[in-house]
Amino acid sequence: MTAGTPGGVRRIALVTDFGPGPYVGQVRLVLDALLPGLPVVSLVSDLAPFRPDLAAYLLPALVRDTPAGTLFLCVVDPGVGGERALLALEADGRWFVGPDNGLLATVARRARHLHALRVGWQPVRFSQSFHGRDLFAPIAARICGGEDLQGDRLDGPSLVGWDWPDDLARVVYVDAYGNLISGARADRLDPQARLSVAGVDIPWARTFCEAPPGSAFWYENAFGLVEIAVNQGRADRVLGLGPGSDLPLCPG
Amino acid sequence: MTAGTPGGVRRIALVTDFGPGPYVGQVRLVLDALLPGLPVVSLVSDLAPFRPDLAAYLLPALVRDTPAGTLFLCVVDPGVGGERALLALEADGRWFVGPDNGLLATVARRARHLHALRVGWQPVRFSQSFHGRDLFAPIAARICGGEDLQGDRLDGPSLVGWDWPDDLARVVYVDAYGNLISGARADRLDPQARLSVAGVDIPWARTFCEAPPGSAFWYENAFGLVEIAVNQGRADRVLGLGPGSDLPLCPG
Amino acid sequence: MTAGTPGGVRRIALVTDFGPGPYVGQVRLVLDALLPGLPVVSLVSDLAPFRPDLAAYLLPALVRDTPAGTLFLCVVDPGVGGERALLALEADGRWFVGPDNGLLATVARRARHLHALRVGWQPVRFSQSFHGRDLFAPIAARICGGEDLQGDRLDGPSLVGWDWPDDLARVVYVDAYGNLISGARADRLDPQARLSVAGVDIPWARTFCEAPPGSAFWYENAFGLVEIAVNQGRADRVLGLGPGSDLPLCPG
Repeated sequence: MTAGTPGGVRRIALVTDFGPGPYVGQVRLVLDALLPGLPVVSLVSDLAPFRPDLAAYLLPALVRDTPAGTLFLCVVDPGVGGERALLALEADGRWFVGPDNGLLATVARRARHLHALRVGWQPVRFSQSFHGRDLFAPIAARICGGEDLQGDRLDGPSLVGWDWPDDLARVVYVDAYGNLISGARADRLDPQARLSVAGVDIPWARTFCEAPPGSAFWYENAFGLVEIAVNQGRADRVLGLGPGSDLPLCPG
Repeated sequence: MTAGTPGGVRRIALVTDFGPGPYVGQVRLVLDALLPGLPVVSLVSDLAPFRPDLAAYLLPALVRDTPAGTLFLCVVDPGVGGERALLALEADGRWFVGPDNGLLATVARRARHLHALRVGWQPVRFSQSFHGRDLFAPIAARICGGEDLQGDRLDGPSLVGWDWPDDLARVVYVDAYGNLISGARADRLDPQARLSVAGVDIPWARTFCEAPPGSAFWYENAFGLVEIAVNQGRADRVLGLGPGSDLPLCPG
Repeated sequence: MTAGTPGGVRRIALVTDFGPGPYVGQVRLVLDALLPGLPVVSLVSDLAPFRPDLAAYLLPALVRDTPAGTLFLCVVDPGVGGERALLALEADGRWFVGPDNGLLATVARRARHLHALRVGWQPVRFSQSFHGRDLFAPIAARICGGEDLQGDRLDGPSLVGWDWPDDLARVVYVDAYGNLISGARADRLDPQARLSVAGVDIPWARTFCEAPPGSAFWYENAFGLVEIAVNQGRADRVLGLGPGSDLPLCPG
């Protein structure tokens, strides 16, 4: 992990299903003590709980337009305390730390340049249930400091989720407006295709203000994903869909 | 915009309807890359979605007691991607960036000293649906750096919303306790007036601990607005009201 | 308060029931102006509203594994604007500021070294309803600056809540996953005891991945508290419990 030298990381972004409670704050306090002065941003904390299979397809889209030099500390980890490995990746100028449960698989698979490590280093003491605070945050700090992770180099195909589909035709995230974000990149779909979802015809629009208020449409969102929305309304309620729902998308 | 010289802005405050998801985090990552070291605070992220007409009356109240030297990046923008203009204001030692849809109108109208620009500068590439990240954040960075916004100077009356009422007799925000915050300044009401809302008599109280637990009262909140609350209860549920509900206030 | 000298505080953590709205942001803006450059982390903002009696037992658990040099600004304050005193504590290398309503009592009672002050200093102007922004934040800033708090030294037993039980056999917090966090330290319970809650048998497990998906178990959480959870499910819904619910725990 050659880029993990001191000074290579300019900021840390947290990507979790921790919700609004104290878990993000505890990770922040630990990082502030380990890495004083390094900016830490909670990029997203309300990923669908326990669903690394969905978050795996939102993560690379969220990352796409973020500045280089960022380390993403990623925790959606229903198997915490079990046998799953701890990963550290360097992918195209960004770093990723998280569990080997598929969460980082899509980022890894799409990378042009990938260095993947199974992390062997552990602190002396850590809890069984909060590895974000007790393992992943200290591992992130070691990457920032250029310290040895005592890792085994991994080939991409040995990562959990490497064999998952390229894009996912499901709802992977519902935002605060009720918009349904899919796991499929918009440039894989016929441009301006009509979709049919839950018995409703869904035309394409360039953006919100081009759709009549109250009616559903799809568009390429600001992360490059197919998103189904209702102008000034909630697509999740109009269509009765949520995280994990199938979407009949036929990538072109 | 003479105050937009380097060093004039001491911190950025985000004022949005983005909710708990990744949009605030993406704006933060962009700002951290553009303006390393400048403090960024998310002042409020749960404004009523798609309602600049309500947020317009909360914004100046929230701003009133904040320190000078703050730039407010404001996004409640149902018309994103359409023809509405991009605004940059300097008002009484504070800066505001946001859409010309009324969101900034009350701040502008109440300012003693106002400089308003329609921003002409645009980055080379930006999305159609996330101007907070792709336009307003870079515009904020240009203000911080004292760079040219390629703007046309505007008169106040040409701003959308300039002709809206001085105060708004509606619920503009419901807080986490269920308190109903109105768009009316308390010093415009007869002090200690009794209100009648949804058939319930609402007496005045100085603050929470002066009202019997479970009963509704109104008071001047810490932002200077008329607020209806229930001591140790939820006024929104007791009265069945929410964002946009009419309130029979008769400013004195 | 000898440790309140300039430089002694390395960061501030906010512990509140303020929710997702503008109150945390306003406190942050005030602190940024008073203490430029000092890190501020919102440790938790969704404590059960109006319930210092519950938060009192979560606070020391949250604090246990946080780095030294932290000042905790704590506000769960249904009596705001009334006669309750303002407290500043120094306890085992950490500082606490908050109302004298029991919120800080468990931290104080468990401290090996406690200095407690009733704060006499007040700013010239402050609101009746937002002491977090207008009193507690400026008091925190005075502690950071080593300034006089014009305080009366208090004995522990004179604090509100000093005589409350050592542990609390109730749900004190429900997290984003629906896990039920109790106010009882796990090392006070028979290890691996079986509990019976709401008619459901609750066995012990080391952590999530050791319990069958969908079934309830209890474990020692990452804060050292007894927590009832459902692997990949919501214990609050399965058991119909929430903040304040009794839990039949029999500390050993």
